Amino acid sequence: MPKLIKTKVEMEGRTFEEYALVDADELPPWTDEEELGIVGFPTPRVDGAERVSGTAQYTHDVRLPGMAYTAALTSPHPHARLVSVDVSEARALPGVLGVLTRTEAHEQLQGGVRRMFTDQLRYAGEIVAAVAATDPDIARDAVALIKSEYEQLPHVVDIEVAAQPDAPKVHTNGNIFGGKPQIVERGDIDTGFAEADVTIEHTYRTATQLHSCLEPHGSVAHWEGDSLTIYESTQHVFGVRNAMARWLGLSQNKVRAICQYIGGGFGSKAGPGVNSVFAALLAKQIGRPVQFMLDRTTEQIGGGNRSAMVMMVRLGAKNDGTLTAMDLHCLADVGAYGPWLPFFAGPALMSYRCPHARSETLGLYTNTGSFMAFRAPGFVEGTFAIESALDELATALKLDPLALRRQNIPDHDQTNGSAFSNYPIEACFQQGAERIEWHARTNGQTSSHDRMRRGIGMSNQIWWGGGGPPAYATVEVNTDGSATLRTGTQDIGTGTKTVLTQVCAEELGLPLAAITTVLGDSGSGQYAPISGGSMTVPSMAPAVRSAARDARIRLLDIVSQMLERPVEALEIRDGQIYEGAENHGRLKDLIGKLGDVMIIGNGSRGPNPDGVTIITSGAQFVEVAVDTLTGHIQVLRVIAAHDCGRIINPLTYRSQIEGGIIQAIGYALTEQRVMDANSGIQLNANLGDYKLPTLADIPEIEVLRIDIPDLVANPTGAKGAGEPPIIPTPAAIANAVYDAIGIRIRELPMTPDKVLAALQRQ
Amino acid sequence: MPKLIKTKVEMEGRTFEEYALVDADELPPWTDEEELGIVGFPTPRVDGAERVSGTAQYTHDVRLPGMAYTAALTSPHPHARLVSVDVSEARALPGVLGVLTRTEAHEQLQGGVRRMFTDQLRYAGEIVAAVAATDPDIARDAVALIKSEYEQLPHVVDIEVAAQPDAPKVHTNGNIFGGKPQIVERGDIDTGFAEADVTIEHTYRTATQLHSCLEPHGSVAHWEGDSLTIYESTQHVFGVRNAMARWLGLSQNKVRAICQYIGGGFGSKAGPGVNSVFAALLAKQIGRPVQFMLDRTTEQIGGGNRSAMVMMVRLGAKNDGTLTAMDLHCLADVGAYGPWLPFFAGPALMSYRCPHARSETLGLYTNTGSFMAFRAPGFVEGTFAIESALDELATALKLDPLALRRQNIPDHDQTNGSAFSNYPIEACFQQGAERIEWHARTNGQTSSHDRMRRGIGMSNQIWWGGGGPPAYATVEVNTDGSATLRTGTQDIGTGTKTVLTQVCAEELGLPLAAITTVLGDSGSGQYAPISGGSMTVPSMAPAVRSAARDARIRLLDIVSQMLERPVEALEIRDGQIYEGAENHGRLKDLIGKLGDVMIIGNGSRGPNPDGVTIITSGAQFVEVAVDTLTGHIQVLRVIAAHDCGRIINPLTYRSQIEGGIIQAIGYALTEQRVMDANSGIQLNANLGDYKLPTLADIPEIEVLRIDIPDLVANPTGAKGAGEPPIIPTPAAIANAVYDAIGIRIRELPMTPDKVLAALQRQ
Repeated sequence: MPKLIKTKVEMEGRTFEEYALVDADELPPWTDEEELGIVGFPTPRVDGAERVSGTAQYTHDVRLPGMAYTAALTSPHPHARLVSVDVSEARALPGVLGVLTRTEAHEQLQGGVRRMFTDQLRYAGEIVAAVAATDPDIARDAVALIKSEYEQLPHVVDIEVAAQPDAPKVHTNGNIFGGKPQIVERGDIDTGFAEADVTIEHTYRTATQLHSCLEPHGSVAHWEGDSLTIYESTQHVFGVRNAMARWLGLSQNKVRAICQYIGGGFGSKAGPGVNSVFAALLAKQIGRPVQFMLDRTTEQIGGGNRSAMVMMVRLGAKNDGTLTAMDLHCLADVGAYGPWLPFFAGPALMSYRCPHARSETLGLYTNTGSFMAFRAPGFVEGTFAIESALDELATALKLDPLALRRQNIPDHDQTNGSAFSNYPIEACFQQGAERIEWHARTNGQTSSHDRMRRGIGMSNQIWWGGGGPPAYATVEVNTDGSATLRTGTQDIGTGTKTVLTQVCAEELGLPLAAITTVLGDSGSGQYAPISGGSMTVPSMAPAVRSAARDARIRLLDIVSQMLERPVEALEIRDGQIYEGAENHGRLKDLIGKLGDVMIIGNGSRGPNPDGVTIITSGAQFVEVAVDTLTGHIQVLRVIAAHDCGRIINPLTYRSQIEGGIIQAIGYALTEQRVMDANSGIQLNANLGDYKLPTLADIPEIEVLRIDIPDLVANPTGAKGAGEPPIIPTPAAIANAVYDAIGIRIRELPMTPDKVLAALQRQ
Repeated sequence: MPKLIKTKVEMEGRTFEEYALVDADELPPWTDEEELGIVGFPTPRVDGAERVSGTAQYTHDVRLPGMAYTAALTSPHPHARLVSVDVSEARALPGVLGVLTRTEAHEQLQGGVRRMFTDQLRYAGEIVAAVAATDPDIARDAVALIKSEYEQLPHVVDIEVAAQPDAPKVHTNGNIFGGKPQIVERGDIDTGFAEADVTIEHTYRTATQLHSCLEPHGSVAHWEGDSLTIYESTQHVFGVRNAMARWLGLSQNKVRAICQYIGGGFGSKAGPGVNSVFAALLAKQIGRPVQFMLDRTTEQIGGGNRSAMVMMVRLGAKNDGTLTAMDLHCLADVGAYGPWLPFFAGPALMSYRCPHARSETLGLYTNTGSFMAFRAPGFVEGTFAIESALDELATALKLDPLALRRQNIPDHDQTNGSAFSNYPIEACFQQGAERIEWHARTNGQTSSHDRMRRGIGMSNQIWWGGGGPPAYATVEVNTDGSATLRTGTQDIGTGTKTVLTQVCAEELGLPLAAITTVLGDSGSGQYAPISGGSMTVPSMAPAVRSAARDARIRLLDIVSQMLERPVEALEIRDGQIYEGAENHGRLKDLIGKLGDVMIIGNGSRGPNPDGVTIITSGAQFVEVAVDTLTGHIQVLRVIAAHDCGRIINPLTYRSQIEGGIIQAIGYALTEQRVMDANSGIQLNANLGDYKLPTLADIPEIEVLRIDIPDLVANPTGAKGAGEPPIIPTPAAIANAVYDAIGIRIRELPMTPDKVLAALQRQ
């Protein structure tokens, strides 16, 4: 029976009761490594052939009979009131099937999403109207025929400007998200700084990073009567289902969301978007399926971004390195409609045993594309600041930076007093330091006469990644010995499908090839959470195990009745029935006698342990070469030591770590959205001028296999690996650069011009 | 835990162990009518709008991107060896994508289905090769370019000829199905006839009836890698899945079968067919989806039929009407590849308490399209014979025909000694007789001077219809108060979707509109049996109830925790939570606080009761007018009294009864396949020359609502209504014709020429 957990929540002086539902879960933990024959072994992707052969169907590839294509008119102004839109000429163009303006959409929507469909345009590139046509070229031609008039309004695209009292107002009630800063504190920082022997204070700046998904945001909407099927490039099919139902005033069982493959999300595809709304409403209008994919420009402007931040970090410490106080301030750009504030202070507050700490985040609206979650939102930015600052503190204290961190690692959760399920950071420090030869580090003592200077740096990392309920799975075993695993999760490119197939095969005792895994369809699998926050594997793997185990128990019960052998003596291994050493033959031969039945196992994710904090942690050690002539920073080597619990598939684990590090290198060295302050126009809304890292930028990456099952966290022992690898890299690079040239770069990206300017100042 | 039932089966001197798997089912029976608020009430079809607006997607309507269309070359000869096929010109036609011959298909298939793909052609119209092209017209043009050579062989299209020892052999080992007659007997018929005071013996003949589904057989096959999705016009998506997997050597989890809507099946669409094989193999060959729909001619020839039969019935009885012996012989046409023999003797052996009975069925292969199950196969034919013969016996005994039947109704199953779960035939006799005013029947005494003569007749009916496991269902309740019922059954036009939605809503306590039912897709719902044999509702309704009940119990448990009220005091009615008379508000408001979870109920069909026979029974009373000038028989009125257990939806129940009666009227009066014996060609393979009943043939039909829940059969009390109504009509008409004009027509269809010839003989 489901168990209800009630929590009293106090907010702004009022008390709420919050509910969470958990199904009892009695899954025994996977304690014995020797028992595992599939989990933990390098396993090529079960859908690799589809992915590399081009047969995998991404939302962009969806073609439905009669499907219309779309193009969008976007705002030329960063801030304006839409005075009029005349679509009559566009509508008259042969091949045009329908036109929808944002204000017409506004009329058909419900809830908070409507704020993005008013006559107020809040960034240049925001969608004004869309055309559906039989052909994408006709749709684009028709967009050119739309006549629109605007009343221009003053704009602001920079957070430091937006924070001024007299700045242009992005929203009527001002530019401050939530009207006030978000504050988190413990202890008393004045006391903390009074106790300090040394205090440092520095400001760190980060640029806006664009997700730059290879597949832009997009949807295909298809109505059958009052039921909507929406193919969406998304990280959460159930999120799309539920939000679209809410926005369109439908019940949830009238919406089906499908995402079989997705060309990148990184947090920006958490739910449906403006594209989904236009697709659904145009499809309704014209009575045909409609595909609405953002073009590259619109994607790079409105497809989400990692907030630019200005972070002030003030640290106090004793001479022996003991942290006494942390004071953290942040301005964060949420763009036009950012939905929440990234927790930039998380890394500082969670990673270190500092009794007095305070953080203050001021979110600022600007006339730019909206902030959306981006792989470890806040933590990448905040880690750059805090881990740079810690190195600066170490310098001031004349301590080894790694020793300084080791000294301040907490033994329990500093934010709430809970124990950690597991926190093997010392293993990460120790193995990483050994591999990079930290002891041989010259510590900024390279000869100042060499053009190319090498340096080594490191950074600590923390993140959540324990997942949790609700998540459901079903396993259907057919009497030919094949099985289907169904669940409503999605594989956002990380290898979820492969990992869950491994878990299912392992628990069932069937070979991997006997399992077909079906996911990414709310019409076929049951509720599963978003693929984000490094929560997928730790949420889904226990649910899948639970379902597979239920099926296995039923199978063994049947086999026991067929063989007339005691059930507790039997087991299924690699599709065969064993009683100790005795082989009773193939499972499929036995259950094949049952005719057309199914043996069905149902499972759900059990609750997390009470009063325990589940984290992932790690460290990266980086070696760089700085060209003092050009200012170019080349990352030579990254040693990544991350604790993500049990590693189910070393291949996809490695891909995750590598991908995170590469994305971090772009963030650290080359990527930045460039806004023209005067015109309010984004200057590099394309993949030519926006500088993603290329093969030439990718260093040797060595992924250490920490692989310590966290069986307190959940019975599979696995935690998430999505976020952790992107978090420490920028700070580790900055620290290595300091090690190489003795210069502290406090602003991302660390482009050659900044390095050269600093060298000149030096 | 699943329970295994082992049965020892003796066959041909060998003993087999047969297995059946049942999940324990503790569903309490629906005993209290007053408690039911949705079940039992007339409910318009939940998919009525799609059906009448043309938006419902039948297999014929499926369009996939790049989909190819097909046309087929068929054999011009009733019996031939395919010597050669030259497809080179066809293949060269622009727009042609691929060609496949039957012998090429043979190479790619596994199992018994291969016998239908050899170089032996066994009926005129059998498919020789198929072309896939971008357009159906091109496909047809290409078929005309195929050059094929045949070696003609002697043929036989008539069962009485095929039964001769020197008849042409359809198969190498002769024309007799199974090599010998199928015999069922009890007691000793010689003893029985020795005890008889009166013996009658007559021979009855029936014609071949064609299913004439409005949507012909057809498939759309679509490969993704090594996985096949097949849209099939079928009565059993899981049957299609499993058979296609077997035939193509795939595991079951690599095949997905979908049938959302079907334009008629009536038994002929039990699984995949030649069309499915051609679609799948052509799709694989050309790397595109392929649609293969039989054209009307091929459908009417090869789409299945009800066997023509010659039935000899010899009955012995005491002067008081007590039956002492039944001797039943039958020749049944199974066509070229008929898979089994229809049980023509069922109605006699099951309906009457006659201690000495024997039946002998000789199945005969002929060079005609294959016999396939057709709504109550064997029972329609056998009931015509036995119920005509009983009237003839009544005449001989000078007894009232209804009284004769009443006198011989058994109180337990005559075939195995079991008790009946319920057998309220007396209620059917009584209510039907009253309604038609049987007592006022003139018994053939109408004036012989009138051109139009009226008569009344009746017939008894028996059938199974209790269903059984395996059948699974899942109910997902969303936190917005909507719910989805998923199951792998299919709605073959009978209203299954509506009935199961009612059952789900009733058990959950939600309004009907809150439920969306998803079925007809092996990729979305779990195993469910074929929609056939009147088994759908009694198999599926308990499974759905079981799943909904599981969900309801979980919901109540959650609500009880939220409200802090004892769970046993709470109930859900019409979407509201009640504690006695106290209304605790809407379920959706309560569970809406849980966020994005699902409350999932899983259910399965429990076992049937041990040692009990479950039957459906009934009677029809018919009034006809015979035009003695033209020989035309007009059915004026049918009173239908059928026990099908609890009636869940009186609207769809009525439709079933009416549909059965209309199909029976066609069978009785107008429908017959016409073969030319010389050429072996079917002369009326179209809907113009094959005479289905029209609106002008349809009488006033009065459906009496017997509605007696059979709670021994299953906890919903419902039994099937698909077969029963077609069974008694032809005999009742024949008996009414005798009543009208004193002439016994012993051959179907009772066309005007037969009536006139008989009148002339009289």
